[in-house]
Amino acid sequence: MEGNKVKIITTKQEICQWAKQVKTSGKSVGFVPTMGFLHKGHLSLVHEAKQANDHVVMSIFVNPLQFGRGEDYTAYPRDEERDKKLAKEAGVDILFMPSVNEMYRKQQSIKLMVTERTDKLCGAKRPGHFDGVVTVLTKFFHLIMPNRAYFGLKDAQQFAVVAALVDELDFPIEIIPVNTVRVPSGLAISSRNVYLTIDEKKQAPALYQSLLLGKKLIEEGETSSTVIIKTVSSYLNKQLGETVKIDYVELLSFPELEEIAEVSRKVILAVAVQFSAARLIDNIMVDS
Amino acid sequence: MEGNKVKIITTKQEICQWAKQVKTSGKSVGFVPTMGFLHKGHLSLVHEAKQANDHVVMSIFVNPLQFGRGEDYTAYPRDEERDKKLAKEAGVDILFMPSVNEMYRKQQSIKLMVTERTDKLCGAKRPGHFDGVVTVLTKFFHLIMPNRAYFGLKDAQQFAVVAALVDELDFPIEIIPVNTVRVPSGLAISSRNVYLTIDEKKQAPALYQSLLLGKKLIEEGETSSTVIIKTVSSYLNKQLGETVKIDYVELLSFPELEEIAEVSRKVILAVAVQFSAARLIDNIMVDS
Repeated sequence: MEGNKVKIITTKQEICQWAKQVKTSGKSVGFVPTMGFLHKGHLSLVHEAKQANDHVVMSIFVNPLQFGRGEDYTAYPRDEERDKKLAKEAGVDILFMPSVNEMYRKQQSIKLMVTERTDKLCGAKRPGHFDGVVTVLTKFFHLIMPNRAYFGLKDAQQFAVVAALVDELDFPIEIIPVNTVRVPSGLAISSRNVYLTIDEKKQAPALYQSLLLGKKLIEEGETSSTVIIKTVSSYLNKQLGETVKIDYVELLSFPELEEIAEVSRKVILAVAVQFSAARLIDNIMVDS
Repeated sequence: MEGNKVKIITTKQEICQWAKQVKTSGKSVGFVPTMGFLHKGHLSLVHEAKQANDHVVMSIFVNPLQFGRGEDYTAYPRDEERDKKLAKEAGVDILFMPSVNEMYRKQQSIKLMVTERTDKLCGAKRPGHFDGVVTVLTKFFHLIMPNRAYFGLKDAQQFAVVAALVDELDFPIEIIPVNTVRVPSGLAISSRNVYLTIDEKKQAPALYQSLLLGKKLIEEGETSSTVIIKTVSSYLNKQLGETVKIDYVELLSFPELEEIAEVSRKVILAVAVQFSAARLIDNIMVDS
């Protein structure tokens, strides 16, 4: 029966031993890194990982290195017992839940720095965020030695940065993108949706609607970045009203995340909107 | 018969495939990274690697990333045919000799930076050198997935930086230090010894003699860094005369490479001397 054998590991030594043993057995490992507080988006990553691998490892670790000053590291939502239950039901084999002290025994004297793709989208407001992301992932990849690691496209910027990390540093790992999970209205699933008011919940599907509108424009032949961004912004403004602040509407090449004047290849259209107590993001890829 | 089966690999894809196969077989891999132009120092690393591992991989790659402006990257001595012969005789199983384009297909957007241990010893004059070293080693470690990697203590600063890299980023690799190989006079073996004049060759053993003198002082109870450095410097000046420039005499904690006033734990005593056409370095560890 699926999901009856989830093993909790909290030390680097134990996960490393487990990984070495699996390597020797020739079995494959799929890895799903998370910060916990699991929802259907995370579970879809597990689902994908189970299709292609003999074992699935999920990490739950709220990584202090990727939170900036003034960000919500200590307030980040946690619910370990519920996470364990959900991971078990989803069929996770190993749940790696190290403490901060276990992961970072001392100050890093060797640092990983992301020098491109960081001044766009959400990265622009989170200096150092992706340095923290690639540092913790590098450590996890070394400890767990997965064949494949799974990342949701909800955070497409993170996916692009991680794909570059693995490519440029020759990690023997395949990075698998997994489509964003949505409720029937089109709203992307996020831990932050619970912070929406009743009225905002009705407005929030406009994010995805605006992306579909932009996609339709491109597919119909519109190539001007300015026109597409303007149309999407106007639609959002109209649907959301004046009290909701649009943080950005960006159209970038993918996975380079470079600004483009003309759409002529694979692009990402992304939006971020600030509601009263929640900032929501969403994006869509278009192959033109 | 030893050394009859050295296999030359030049692509990342092929070495990666080989490494994955070996991992599954449960056999161990020892890795000896070099920049070629092999001498007895390199071969002693191979010798150590052969004792403890089923397979030995040697890389020969003159890494442009670790050479600064004005350094001798293009002039760095190369002799591939001789290297292949020596590696084969020493019993290397796989010789990994990638081109620069193979190793660096594009500009790195994710950078490794060494933020400590770099302003001491030879690092002080080579800004960015160790960033290049840890970057290429990270790539090699991912491609080759060795159980153990071997580094000579001749470059003790490099060993300390690499040990920190592996420790802080949780590489599943053991870093093995190997003692400096010396000719009977005590002179450390180095590719650069050939650039010494006949007179300088007679003087050069003074480097190691000065280190032994410092070690003796410490073992006899001297704890003042200043006294030890002064005594070693005076000895060197006397033996080498005025035409030879002492680049540094340093006494540091090991492996932290921090300056110390009092010797009270494991330390490294290191010297660098500029002869007419060669700059020689040497060091000694003392456990006090």
